[in-house]
Amino acid sequence: MFDLVLSNVCLNGALTDIGIAGGRIAAIGPGLEAGAATVEDGAGCQLLPGLIEAHTHLDKNLLEMDWVENVVASDIKAKIDNERHLKGVTGLDPARQSARQVVMSIAKGSTAIRSHVDIDTQYGLAGFEGVAATRQRYADAIDIEIVAFPQSGMLVRPGTIELMDEALRQGADVVGGIDPCSMDRDPKGHLDVVFELATKHGKPIDIHVHEPHELGMFTFEMIIERTRAHGLGGNVTVSHAFALGANDYLAVAKLLERIAEAGIALMSTGPSMVPVPPLLRALDAGITVCSGTDGMRDFWNPYGNADMLERARILAERNNLSRDAEVERALEVCTYGGARVMKLADYGLEVGNYADLVLVAGRNPVEAIVTLPPRKLVLKRGRVVARDGVALVEAA
Amino acid sequence: MFDLVLSNVCLNGALTDIGIAGGRIAAIGPGLEAGAATVEDGAGCQLLPGLIEAHTHLDKNLLEMDWVENVVASDIKAKIDNERHLKGVTGLDPARQSARQVVMSIAKGSTAIRSHVDIDTQYGLAGFEGVAATRQRYADAIDIEIVAFPQSGMLVRPGTIELMDEALRQGADVVGGIDPCSMDRDPKGHLDVVFELATKHGKPIDIHVHEPHELGMFTFEMIIERTRAHGLGGNVTVSHAFALGANDYLAVAKLLERIAEAGIALMSTGPSMVPVPPLLRALDAGITVCSGTDGMRDFWNPYGNADMLERARILAERNNLSRDAEVERALEVCTYGGARVMKLADYGLEVGNYADLVLVAGRNPVEAIVTLPPRKLVLKRGRVVARDGVALVEAA
Repeated sequence: MFDLVLSNVCLNGALTDIGIAGGRIAAIGPGLEAGAATVEDGAGCQLLPGLIEAHTHLDKNLLEMDWVENVVASDIKAKIDNERHLKGVTGLDPARQSARQVVMSIAKGSTAIRSHVDIDTQYGLAGFEGVAATRQRYADAIDIEIVAFPQSGMLVRPGTIELMDEALRQGADVVGGIDPCSMDRDPKGHLDVVFELATKHGKPIDIHVHEPHELGMFTFEMIIERTRAHGLGGNVTVSHAFALGANDYLAVAKLLERIAEAGIALMSTGPSMVPVPPLLRALDAGITVCSGTDGMRDFWNPYGNADMLERARILAERNNLSRDAEVERALEVCTYGGARVMKLADYGLEVGNYADLVLVAGRNPVEAIVTLPPRKLVLKRGRVVARDGVALVEAA
Repeated sequence: MFDLVLSNVCLNGALTDIGIAGGRIAAIGPGLEAGAATVEDGAGCQLLPGLIEAHTHLDKNLLEMDWVENVVASDIKAKIDNERHLKGVTGLDPARQSARQVVMSIAKGSTAIRSHVDIDTQYGLAGFEGVAATRQRYADAIDIEIVAFPQSGMLVRPGTIELMDEALRQGADVVGGIDPCSMDRDPKGHLDVVFELATKHGKPIDIHVHEPHELGMFTFEMIIERTRAHGLGGNVTVSHAFALGANDYLAVAKLLERIAEAGIALMSTGPSMVPVPPLLRALDAGITVCSGTDGMRDFWNPYGNADMLERARILAERNNLSRDAEVERALEVCTYGGARVMKLADYGLEVGNYADLVLVAGRNPVEAIVTLPPRKLVLKRGRVVARDGVALVEAA
């Protein structure tokens, strides 16, 4: 009757069983073991929906490569130029490196990833092709969405727009963008291209906006205008959105309201060194918020482990969330928030949804977030893809 | 000739051996195994000096106790009152709880701890007595320094000063204090008591100053004046020092200079949700900076794991340190900085110093900080006190 039953899992504070059939949750309730082809003892672990890695850069981590000493200056353009240079020097292979990070993500319990992938005139579509190969290779174990991302700018590097267009034609899922003022020095030009590509290909948008304070607020206004004009509400995400970390309570409140009205989602990784969007205020304004690992172990910084359960903790701490109920909202961002942004069908812990599930030790979800034990079990569409912290798929 | 040799350890990028005799580093160089009673294979791990936990609250964690849902309001006084109330309700035993945290610290590689311990009129010296018992119990495995800490204020709770005095008489090592303006509403009164107790008992000072911006800067001025007047340069630490996170570059620069001149040390845990002292600027000003776990798994917040190697990472990320050389400075804060604040004799990786050592996997210290593997070996005075992430001492 069930292909698999997870017995003795903790859901909303009570022990129960989960019956899985045809890759979906077929039943929730006690005493389901009898009808199961296979039973996995949940041992009282917390049952969570698959974690959603909604913002990373699969194409350019340095996992298992030779150590590269970081000596780059702190400004963002220096880092971008440094990265473009070192990719060639080190022979970074996007297919190999993305596979390594994906395996790490699966081990940590992510069941879907949105990855930005660099598109530029130096490496062309190499990053996209590498991550697309990885997407295909691990299609049974994880969903991967690719954002065509003009990391080095578009208008300042002629030829980039055509490459973006080609990536979208070949199967990139989302149109990326970056700092329309400070990168391309032409916010109108940059955003018009982004929205035209989205309209042409019928694909959503996810723009990096690191621009702070009034500059970022100006960029937000331009994004809101275009989202409304193109009827793209529900299809635009602004990543980082540091402008919303500004200390002007009223200006931020007004902007949050307008973002909510326009149907724009936010992505925040909860970084500790820059101002960040106020998480609870954004959620209370009705905005969908997702999170991600961002770049990890790369030419920008040495940090990161692809653990979206740890990300919930980082996000919670960054937003000064200590109460249990608040910490759980940070976890929702790393699960349901990401699923909404990626429009994942049939996601969640109800009967009928795909069995994309994580089991992790803890007396409640907050304890799991705080202690971060290895994931006991990770399921993708009812299939075990990781056990006791180790992925059952391998990289190169 | 050697009681113990650590072979094949990585020190400053080169493999070498460490010969240990009489609890001290007796020799550093290749080929020492021959003269050893015992050899531990370092397997190429990084050799670090013992990690120094320079700011925590051993007396009030909830490790292994029943889960307590956190529903407290966010202001600091509500949290303090909530904590004082719940300590009684939950039957928190400071001896038992401090032992649990100490064992965790040893497993993570800390070889010395400075712990603030609550002194108040409700629980009297119970916290001090409990942590003092733990200090004695683990004396062979870790150094513990106790700060008599008036968490609930001194002047606003008559009888507290007498309890502080008694704790110092009974063996508390350091005089604590907290937010002289906002807690006791009498900065002169509060600080005069702190400095009088320090002078009377001949003990150093470590004051919590959460007060932000101009308020905290005012408190700093009063601490600087008294440090100079009492000749206590080199014996005063200001913990948290959020005022130094203010956005006024010149005001902060001037204050950093005066702090350095006065010989005051800073403690920063690198929290993500509040402004923090700028780490590199403080170090470059010549100030001694240490770090710590602060309160963990307690009535304030559910976070924390007593890992000072992770703390180096938190501190580095909080201060936007990505370059290898910068990240290593954050590690120095969690090792040498703490040792200087605690005036630990004969500390460090030179021949003649105590063999308080940590071995941890990684191609270099930065990789160890980023990946945080279980500590392979922790030595206290040449004795193995933890192996493969597990302490060789136990709690209750």
